[in-house]
Amino acid sequence: MWLGKGAQMSYISQQIRLASRPQGVPQPENFRTEEHQVREPSDGEVLLRTIYLSLDPYMRGRMSDAESYAEPVTVGEVMVGATVSEVLDSRSPDFEQGQIVRGYGGWQSHSTEPAASLRALDPDSAPITTALGVLGMPGFTAYAGLLALGRPEPGETLAVAAATGPVGSAVGQIAKLKGCRTIGIAGGADKVAHLRDLGFDVALDHRADDLGSRLRDATPDGIDIYFENVGGAVFDAVLPRLNTFARVPVCGLAATYNSTELPEGPDRSPALMGLILRKSLTLRGFIQNEFVPTMFESFLRDMGAWVRAGDVRYREDITEGLERAPEVFTGMLGGGNFGKTLIKVSDLQR
Amino acid sequence: MWLGKGAQMSYISQQIRLASRPQGVPQPENFRTEEHQVREPSDGEVLLRTIYLSLDPYMRGRMSDAESYAEPVTVGEVMVGATVSEVLDSRSPDFEQGQIVRGYGGWQSHSTEPAASLRALDPDSAPITTALGVLGMPGFTAYAGLLALGRPEPGETLAVAAATGPVGSAVGQIAKLKGCRTIGIAGGADKVAHLRDLGFDVALDHRADDLGSRLRDATPDGIDIYFENVGGAVFDAVLPRLNTFARVPVCGLAATYNSTELPEGPDRSPALMGLILRKSLTLRGFIQNEFVPTMFESFLRDMGAWVRAGDVRYREDITEGLERAPEVFTGMLGGGNFGKTLIKVSDLQR
Repeated sequence: MWLGKGAQMSYISQQIRLASRPQGVPQPENFRTEEHQVREPSDGEVLLRTIYLSLDPYMRGRMSDAESYAEPVTVGEVMVGATVSEVLDSRSPDFEQGQIVRGYGGWQSHSTEPAASLRALDPDSAPITTALGVLGMPGFTAYAGLLALGRPEPGETLAVAAATGPVGSAVGQIAKLKGCRTIGIAGGADKVAHLRDLGFDVALDHRADDLGSRLRDATPDGIDIYFENVGGAVFDAVLPRLNTFARVPVCGLAATYNSTELPEGPDRSPALMGLILRKSLTLRGFIQNEFVPTMFESFLRDMGAWVRAGDVRYREDITEGLERAPEVFTGMLGGGNFGKTLIKVSDLQR
Repeated sequence: MWLGKGAQMSYISQQIRLASRPQGVPQPENFRTEEHQVREPSDGEVLLRTIYLSLDPYMRGRMSDAESYAEPVTVGEVMVGATVSEVLDSRSPDFEQGQIVRGYGGWQSHSTEPAASLRALDPDSAPITTALGVLGMPGFTAYAGLLALGRPEPGETLAVAAATGPVGSAVGQIAKLKGCRTIGIAGGADKVAHLRDLGFDVALDHRADDLGSRLRDATPDGIDIYFENVGGAVFDAVLPRLNTFARVPVCGLAATYNSTELPEGPDRSPALMGLILRKSLTLRGFIQNEFVPTMFESFLRDMGAWVRAGDVRYREDITEGLERAPEVFTGMLGGGNFGKTLIKVSDLQR
């Protein structure tokens, strides 16, 4: 939306702000919608109209004020998030009106961002949504975490949960390209069928009974790499299957993000430490930005080629309308998405 | 003891055998003493008289039949252990009578061992006891775990518990040589004073009140490396002090070795996983033999030089009499030792 103002234009941004910190599952009242005039760009800044907003599990952490790797969103501020946007006005020599860019506009329809934080996209080389998924942060998380920390070797067995999600599906497909046997875990028959389509060697439904015994049957040679992005019951089922020298890149713990207290006892942390010792395990937490300086270029090159060749496929789960972001986000934490969760905020007008 | 038998000699070995698997703290009835004639060496074997027996925390694991990195000792068999021994009879060209060797004779006065498992010692270059401590498996555990997994950098802070023990004291002193600030944790005033003698920058008594707040005060810049060899309350105190990208080589969990059940709840394992994620921690279990092929030579060279120069000092806790091994072992698990625990089984007769 724009308002003529003499020779200048000004824009109104529709915004979803954090109204209060969620306790447990985020509720509608934790968010509020506001409209504000968009700040005009200063030198080195660009004014953007959001086309797609990415919703990702890490955002649950930003809603909380527990100590973490990133500052929480201040109550009252616009929720953060990666976006694909169109340049409306540029005060940077690096961008011009009409260009499509990946930025960090947050949960709003317009944003003013420093040019240094933007990356220009070529809509002819890949669909622009991929900059938020398979060729964006989730894909890079999979690529860097698997290759730098999982260190897959041909013939090894890899397991990953949330395996139809943007990270898990890329992890499994890259591991397969590296010669691993791949075990994908997801919730529900549709997702399990999709895992088979993606080429996972084994697809398991974590909602069916007795995941532990089915995982045992599916991993006669144990598990060498468990790419951890959910925690909870899947982690419990995986632990006894880990081989000596297994690697566990810890990328996310989606099953626990809404937890408000620890589970009942006994305290199993000494047992976990004992297993780490007895099996010479490596557990390594990571955030993808650790690897951006060393691996992002090779990621764009490798993953771009794999996606173009159809060796790595991806699925998107797109909902139209910024106002639906809170409910879609909460649904995603519960596994309600099927592929990369995106909000279509506005149309691409070209 | 020997019995003349024509031209041949035969020897009687006094042995301590595992009589039953301990539940919790090992008790006298878990062991029994027997005497057996020592098997004569075959080709490639050597007959040995034990001078020193090493007692080490890992032996508690061998008494148990829980799944582990090494086979448990079978009930009824001689307890395993590293030894320093004198060659009585050799059927190997590599060893001759009178030589002093490091072997794996176990808890007994004589043993017949394959020559391939022995290492010749030079009593003129270092006291022979050091082959079981600072220049043996405990020293190598410290060296390999710290350098390969802890990866100390100048200016970083290292913490280690059981810091007057053979592993912990070497860890602290090597870290100091590598430019780290070192925090040693031990039980009791004598041990804390010894830590100061060894050059630890900070020495803390885990038996005094409120280890957590004293550790917080002592680590204004947090902890970059925690060399884990005890677990339990010290681990709890260290966790909140770990910096982003901290490394935790998990070498032992002595505080939990006698545990028969998990502690009461809540279950803190999700909190541990959350911390690994939020702080990009590396927890890495290891057994020293993983690093023998790549690091043992450099260990003997470096550590030998450091010990000769007085840069790495060591302390031994020697008890005379094989029959005392069970009680000394149990005492050691409770922190009753002060330095490397050794049993003097017989005199060096040279």
